[in-house]
Amino acid sequence: MTPNPALGAHLQPFSGITTFMRQTPTRDLNGVDVAIVGIPFDSGTSYRSGTRFGPRKIREASLMLWGHNPILHVSPLDKLNLVDYGDVEVIPVDIRATMENVTREVGEILAQDVTVIALGGDHSLALPLLRAHAAKHGPLAVVHFDSHPDMWNREFGEAFPYSHGTPFIRAVEEGLIDRDAYLQIGIRGPVSAPDDYADAIRAGAEMIPIGEAFEMGTQAIIERIHAKMGNRKVYVTLDIDATDPAYAPGTGTPEVGGFTSFQMLQMVRGLKGLNLVGFDLVEVNPQYDHGDITALLAANLVFEFLSLLAM
Amino acid sequence: MTPNPALGAHLQPFSGITTFMRQTPTRDLNGVDVAIVGIPFDSGTSYRSGTRFGPRKIREASLMLWGHNPILHVSPLDKLNLVDYGDVEVIPVDIRATMENVTREVGEILAQDVTVIALGGDHSLALPLLRAHAAKHGPLAVVHFDSHPDMWNREFGEAFPYSHGTPFIRAVEEGLIDRDAYLQIGIRGPVSAPDDYADAIRAGAEMIPIGEAFEMGTQAIIERIHAKMGNRKVYVTLDIDATDPAYAPGTGTPEVGGFTSFQMLQMVRGLKGLNLVGFDLVEVNPQYDHGDITALLAANLVFEFLSLLAM
Amino acid sequence: MTPNPALGAHLQPFSGITTFMRQTPTRDLNGVDVAIVGIPFDSGTSYRSGTRFGPRKIREASLMLWGHNPILHVSPLDKLNLVDYGDVEVIPVDIRATMENVTREVGEILAQDVTVIALGGDHSLALPLLRAHAAKHGPLAVVHFDSHPDMWNREFGEAFPYSHGTPFIRAVEEGLIDRDAYLQIGIRGPVSAPDDYADAIRAGAEMIPIGEAFEMGTQAIIERIHAKMGNRKVYVTLDIDATDPAYAPGTGTPEVGGFTSFQMLQMVRGLKGLNLVGFDLVEVNPQYDHGDITALLAANLVFEFLSLLAM
Amino acid sequence: MTPNPALGAHLQPFSGITTFMRQTPTRDLNGVDVAIVGIPFDSGTSYRSGTRFGPRKIREASLMLWGHNPILHVSPLDKLNLVDYGDVEVIPVDIRATMENVTREVGEILAQDVTVIALGGDHSLALPLLRAHAAKHGPLAVVHFDSHPDMWNREFGEAFPYSHGTPFIRAVEEGLIDRDAYLQIGIRGPVSAPDDYADAIRAGAEMIPIGEAFEMGTQAIIERIHAKMGNRKVYVTLDIDATDPAYAPGTGTPEVGGFTSFQMLQMVRGLKGLNLVGFDLVEVNPQYDHGDITALLAANLVFEFLSLLAM
Amino acid sequence: MTPNPALGAHLQPFSGITTFMRQTPTRDLNGVDVAIVGIPFDSGTSYRSGTRFGPRKIREASLMLWGHNPILHVSPLDKLNLVDYGDVEVIPVDIRATMENVTREVGEILAQDVTVIALGGDHSLALPLLRAHAAKHGPLAVVHFDSHPDMWNREFGEAFPYSHGTPFIRAVEEGLIDRDAYLQIGIRGPVSAPDDYADAIRAGAEMIPIGEAFEMGTQAIIERIHAKMGNRKVYVTLDIDATDPAYAPGTGTPEVGGFTSFQMLQMVRGLKGLNLVGFDLVEVNPQYDHGDITALLAANLVFEFLSLLAM
Amino acid sequence: MTPNPALGAHLQPFSGITTFMRQTPTRDLNGVDVAIVGIPFDSGTSYRSGTRFGPRKIREASLMLWGHNPILHVSPLDKLNLVDYGDVEVIPVDIRATMENVTREVGEILAQDVTVIALGGDHSLALPLLRAHAAKHGPLAVVHFDSHPDMWNREFGEAFPYSHGTPFIRAVEEGLIDRDAYLQIGIRGPVSAPDDYADAIRAGAEMIPIGEAFEMGTQAIIERIHAKMGNRKVYVTLDIDATDPAYAPGTGTPEVGGFTSFQMLQMVRGLKGLNLVGFDLVEVNPQYDHGDITALLAANLVFEFLSLLAM
Repeated sequence: MTPNPALGAHLQPFSGITTFMRQTPTRDLNGVDVAIVGIPFDSGTSYRSGTRFGPRKIREASLMLWGHNPILHVSPLDKLNLVDYGDVEVIPVDIRATMENVTREVGEILAQDVTVIALGGDHSLALPLLRAHAAKHGPLAVVHFDSHPDMWNREFGEAFPYSHGTPFIRAVEEGLIDRDAYLQIGIRGPVSAPDDYADAIRAGAEMIPIGEAFEMGTQAIIERIHAKMGNRKVYVTLDIDATDPAYAPGTGTPEVGGFTSFQMLQMVRGLKGLNLVGFDLVEVNPQYDHGDITALLAANLVFEFLSLLAM
Repeated sequence: MTPNPALGAHLQPFSGITTFMRQTPTRDLNGVDVAIVGIPFDSGTSYRSGTRFGPRKIREASLMLWGHNPILHVSPLDKLNLVDYGDVEVIPVDIRATMENVTREVGEILAQDVTVIALGGDHSLALPLLRAHAAKHGPLAVVHFDSHPDMWNREFGEAFPYSHGTPFIRAVEEGLIDRDAYLQIGIRGPVSAPDDYADAIRAGAEMIPIGEAFEMGTQAIIERIHAKMGNRKVYVTLDIDATDPAYAPGTGTPEVGGFTSFQMLQMVRGLKGLNLVGFDLVEVNPQYDHGDITALLAANLVFEFLSLLAM
Repeated sequence: MTPNPALGAHLQPFSGITTFMRQTPTRDLNGVDVAIVGIPFDSGTSYRSGTRFGPRKIREASLMLWGHNPILHVSPLDKLNLVDYGDVEVIPVDIRATMENVTREVGEILAQDVTVIALGGDHSLALPLLRAHAAKHGPLAVVHFDSHPDMWNREFGEAFPYSHGTPFIRAVEEGLIDRDAYLQIGIRGPVSAPDDYADAIRAGAEMIPIGEAFEMGTQAIIERIHAKMGNRKVYVTLDIDATDPAYAPGTGTPEVGGFTSFQMLQMVRGLKGLNLVGFDLVEVNPQYDHGDITALLAANLVFEFLSLLAM
Repeated sequence: MTPNPALGAHLQPFSGITTFMRQTPTRDLNGVDVAIVGIPFDSGTSYRSGTRFGPRKIREASLMLWGHNPILHVSPLDKLNLVDYGDVEVIPVDIRATMENVTREVGEILAQDVTVIALGGDHSLALPLLRAHAAKHGPLAVVHFDSHPDMWNREFGEAFPYSHGTPFIRAVEEGLIDRDAYLQIGIRGPVSAPDDYADAIRAGAEMIPIGEAFEMGTQAIIERIHAKMGNRKVYVTLDIDATDPAYAPGTGTPEVGGFTSFQMLQMVRGLKGLNLVGFDLVEVNPQYDHGDITALLAANLVFEFLSLLAM
Repeated sequence: MTPNPALGAHLQPFSGITTFMRQTPTRDLNGVDVAIVGIPFDSGTSYRSGTRFGPRKIREASLMLWGHNPILHVSPLDKLNLVDYGDVEVIPVDIRATMENVTREVGEILAQDVTVIALGGDHSLALPLLRAHAAKHGPLAVVHFDSHPDMWNREFGEAFPYSHGTPFIRAVEEGLIDRDAYLQIGIRGPVSAPDDYADAIRAGAEMIPIGEAFEMGTQAIIERIHAKMGNRKVYVTLDIDATDPAYAPGTGTPEVGGFTSFQMLQMVRGLKGLNLVGFDLVEVNPQYDHGDITALLAANLVFEFLSLLAM
Repeated sequence: MTPNPALGAHLQPFSGITTFMRQTPTRDLNGVDVAIVGIPFDSGTSYRSGTRFGPRKIREASLMLWGHNPILHVSPLDKLNLVDYGDVEVIPVDIRATMENVTREVGEILAQDVTVIALGGDHSLALPLLRAHAAKHGPLAVVHFDSHPDMWNREFGEAFPYSHGTPFIRAVEEGLIDRDAYLQIGIRGPVSAPDDYADAIRAGAEMIPIGEAFEMGTQAIIERIHAKMGNRKVYVTLDIDATDPAYAPGTGTPEVGGFTSFQMLQMVRGLKGLNLVGFDLVEVNPQYDHGDITALLAANLVFEFLSLLAM
């Protein structure tokens, strides 16, 4: 797409309009390979609201991303036609209506054979995203970075099945996830009940809690991921709170004792070679960030997603 | 009620448990005159979420409130049996369920002849609060301090009648407000359409926009309030953003060009003599506050409410 | 211009791409009436750098501006074709090169009969802006809101005539300002030497220091402005530090004891009826702002500029 | 004193060593007229500690003070030999030892006929400062700007007579204050008991509460000060929390509903003509400030003190 | 104890009253196993005051602690009757009086066979806490996590033996610590004199400086702890600044180059099997925290303490 | 030099004047071994301005540095006569004039056989510093800690060879660096073009990217440094952004995935034994710091520089 000079592609990162990596904001997806899709919804959160500002801040931080990835040896924007789709309309007062919007709009994008990288927003969004992707691809293998399993049955009472603590139990129930290929990495922190982990595992999740992850090291984790995923179609869902709050303070339900930013980058780079069909990066909450270091980490992780797609 | 020493009534404000003015946290309302009721719901907001932390921060700031009001010459805790009811359970993903909880729980408190001072949370809460109060008292005269009329018909699309921009049009439609005695004070800022003010006025609101308010002065505003309210039963709803962001930065949809904190205090003190039956103070958003000055102003305004009730 | 749905015109202010009031980012000025032009340059500052982030934050705050001005009774976007031009390329290491870019690019915009509203950046930018406007219009009448005269001869030593403390002495020397119609409003604070004010006045500035301004009141100031400007072509330069730091903490050289935000709004509204040909709003420094209240005030003042142009 | 180039007198305010207005740090008081004396003690506070960083931040903010006062028409550094004495050694664990240090060291400075401008720290310091000044001058007339009377009998229990809430009752008891000439300005906020104000008045304080102050206006307040003080020797004690938290958020026990910064400056300028013998400015707490606006106000108020001394 | 619904045990962490893990605030210790005791004293600090707000913020963060510990396989609240005792009354102006209060009140709690987990406040509190515990248990084995030995002889001059830099030399002198079983872990940073470490060691402390700790790894540290402590009665004192400031910025005297939060958690979990009789967690300073990550780490460490007690 | 009591050498770190480690501010370099030289210039930055406040904040943090280094077993101030030179005059609007000032003033200091430790400001300053040092010592071996190579040919367009992204390519071109002994450590992040690293290497830099650095460990890096530097004269340039933003958020162009503070300290300590002739520590940006942890790390790294010089 001919660059729009008003966006400021020739400018330094403090200048110009803040689309993702200065790409064109458009809904014309003709010839497009990848779309950045913001979903600024935070009503599903059980603690600190504010992730509705996540997409905006990640876009801003993305202006620091020069074009070439010297680890994966690829310049993603040379290989991929990337656009900034803007944001899906969310309805803060209604999670069901929001989820419907997400499933429908993302489904329409996928229908044009465009890969979606979704920016949250809270993790409740993983459910409608999985619905849209599974509608196209069938049940998905899932690599899930997180400090929480997000497989509670209910968070706000019996009548409310949807929230940022429940998307993956719903997804399993709905058959959106291939239970033979669902891996959770980085889980930690106090849980509600003795059986919380067991329940999640019984529902299909293989879990690498943080202690085991630190003992294995990132290389072994990467190998476990590849062994588990094989050549299935893989959806990657990355809750920024998998990272330690020292590296990612800007999130809604921080859990101490997590990954460093380098480990996060290494694990995402290690997804190279998988059959990747979808991505989300959620739970960036700028209201609790400082120096925008969380948003910057998020932008770099999205850059690694793009690099993976470009290889 | 015998004070609980663990709450720390004998301590300085940096110490002890943060109930409102160190009052007992209880749901036993026997003999109680006034209950502080938190409603930490912020999914109704159209801009910055975070008011869910309003009740907590106002409680914390309330420890700075010594017992005597030297302007109104009253020591409210000597006259009133005040308790901290804690918070109504809110459901961030479901505004209707939340509103039902508010209406039901507040209704039960009112049924015991306890006056409620509700702490938000966003302004969508005014609707279930008015439902509860009108159920007991009939249609209410309303003194409404705000920078916005909050009388839009819809904020998030046709299907969603409830949000923090719509409670008063709903309340008028439901007959909860006495249209002869509804006064809005402090309105300002850009609006959506040329008829926004006219629509609000047609629906029953008498409006004192900020420019007129500054020309009148607080004494004349107070007189207008008394003239309008007469001896009706009055509900007071106070959106902290009626105050200028210099004085109340911690709010979700700040509008520049508003009242000073002194003017706010004067106007609330000026409600003396009205037949006051209910209060809310909403839209305190600690995530955007600094030095807790907004929470502190809110706590002082609640102290004035209490003083009015004690006279 | 057909709205681009990716910009998010239908969305709430927390959502979508942050162009000014969601207007199209473009350099195609065909049929355009007004262009928002960012100039993120802060190397001219003598104290706190950071105003380079001013344009970005004002754009973000502008999403809070609903379309209708209920004081001036106009919906500017209904009357004006407004675009977001993006930012002029600035060279942080070279103020002369930056000023040349500003003069040239703004000159080209003006040559297409588009009115420019420039967002700084520091006040050194007023000089190249005045060069561009005077090239088109001849010497300009100037309404200058500021806490400082910005008429020092040199700020960083003899060899360096350009900085944010010198633009107006340079502009007078270069004949860009009509010395019969140059009014400074809000001046205050300690100065370098006893003759600083006298020097500024001798150079052509009529000065309303803040004490006199408070005594006169905004209505009398407005009358003085109109009397002074008459029907000349008027350029408005607004340094946000004319406002008190309580209302505008996010600025580089704050001076205590200034205007309230309401007074600023009133004075800008009072420019109604002048023959306005150019505007800048400078010295918003988000790194020292809190709750974005300074950026929000700036966005509202730009909205008033737009409303004046639309009448 | 020959300026030390390492201090950076020729530099812009972002540069160089942060002594007060770049004056020499020295304890050689030979030929000195005025000494800036920091007292970084905050253990006397009943709410937010942190005023120990007040002197440092006020020094930093003082670099923004150019040399000439255009309202009082004086360049204080041309008239006065000013030095930065540095800080009195304080003992955070022992208020009595700290007070002894203050009284002794300040007494030694006064003994050399040097006027002291003391920077707090919390208001408990007023007592040892008054002891030192009364030892030289006898009982003092006192102009006291504050939101609190600071005349409680005890704050932390019977055994502890000293704290930031008690200095003035102690000073009256010790005969340090001339009870015919003690004026408190700006008092407000909830108090402990119905008789708090009456007790303070009975002890000798004439009180202008904030409501009365706003009705009178600053000019009438100035007249009242002059009438009350006459030609007595006057000590000025200025608690920054006399100012509204919008203008001075960086303080330990903020009270909403106070003076603007302009009013503070006007009242201090209005002390012109009094027989001023001592000054303190206390309760600046940088940990709760933002954009350093409180420190900047404090530095400007000290500049007015200096101007008064230079006239 | 029957839960008090006003405390909000059924609510999400953003809601309800902030007692520690929503436990009952009470001084009735009948049947109680463990009491959380706040000691909001910060006058003993040599740098940044503000730890007086530590207990309050740790309580707030504790609402994020779900009930089950999946590493130690225990649900502490199922095994222990835990209450929130509230705060000991501290006297900011008098460290001796404060220490007496602590020793007396904590002694009374211990006398009822309740285990105390004390939340600071600054580290000077370890002395009166050790006095109370040694009075019951005799000289104590001590596991001391810290970046500083806190064994200076004097910090503020000869006359002042008590401060946050001296508690452990005092405790050794008073025979409160078993010199054969005193282990300091994490020590680092510049020291006052070449013999500082040697002096501490001579006084009885075995020291694992941070460099050695990183070489050993947490497993070997845990083994060293167990070898050293044996089956003695062990008091654990944890200065949050043992952690690196990246993970625990909210502290008064941060030292760079420290432990990660995961290492801290692992070491505390490694205390399993010791004969633990007392705990303190000190030096959390919310005024310098961001995103509350330090308070959250502290709350999690207290949860591990509770888990150890419950096993 | 006889200590100046007004500087406060006997005081705690919250007190007194903020020169580096309380050393005398002076330009009399007679008998001086080492001078701390601030260079508060930030106009060379391509992203976040604000490093102009770096020297001031590092001075403030240096008051936490007690005198003895227990790792290197040296008390640098006992061995070295250290002074605080204050700041070089910088011209924000003119990078060339600033660089000339730096080269000339630092050259004059070096001519008196005083070792300079320069505190930035942005990394553009390395060029004039290298000019001054190479003028005295000839081409220099360089140990360069950084996340970026800073060897772009141009950053702001063809006409502008100087900026914080270009100093080392200029230095190589000017023959200031010994191309056989130039080592870059910590490089990471997206780059502009596939050949960016290769270009830097071709120009003479040996590069240890962060991934390789983490695999090697600090001990092997130290060995590589010694092998490469041999007994050449070594200049050390340390961009604080070599450190991960978790540990050093206060910087202008943060790159995620970097060193811990402990690793930084270890690598600097590992320079022991090299023939060190010059140092700079740049890119500390206090406007994005929190809890001053970045400034504190910087001060500690300078303390290690001093310790190396003292051995």
